[in-house]
Amino acid sequence: MTFRVHVRVVPRPGLLDPQGQAVAHALAALGFPGVGEVRVGRAIELELEADDRATAEAAATAMCERLLANPVTEDFTVAVEG
Amino acid sequence: MTFRVHVRVVPRPGLLDPQGQAVAHALAALGFPGVGEVRVGRAIELELEADDRATAEAAATAMCERLLANPVTEDFTVAVEG
Repeated sequence: MTFRVHVRVVPRPGLLDPQGQAVAHALAALGFPGVGEVRVGRAIELELEADDRATAEAAATAMCERLLANPVTEDFTVAVEG
Repeated sequence: MTFRVHVRVVPRPGLLDPQGQAVAHALAALGFPGVGEVRVGRAIELELEADDRATAEAAATAMCERLLANPVTEDFTVAVEG
């Protein structure tokens, strides 16, 4: 079966995120009210062939741990669809 | 109320995504089987003060259209939590 996997990788809370701060300032300058903290990370979408959903999720988690995320500075979430 | 908004911005299907291709090749080289197309975009998390969920979602969509996404080359999704 082919699964679509959505991965989010974002800087850990408490770590400096200059890109997020730049976005927050730009949104304020554009006139959007009420914007608090902004964090910018990566969204990765994969097509993944696997026997079942649990296998796909385990594989995607291993991919995050080995390549997609930096375990020291980033948190990741994996969502399997279809 | 404060809402947490999750935004995903990814390159449109059919557009060249060299970063996604590089990730797909790297995953294959690491020995992960069954990986098809990979697309890499941005994950943006915002804290947003708004009266209700619908207002927060409308504001986040407007932010995507004006700043966070390139309407020519990228698709975005908005998810409001809390």
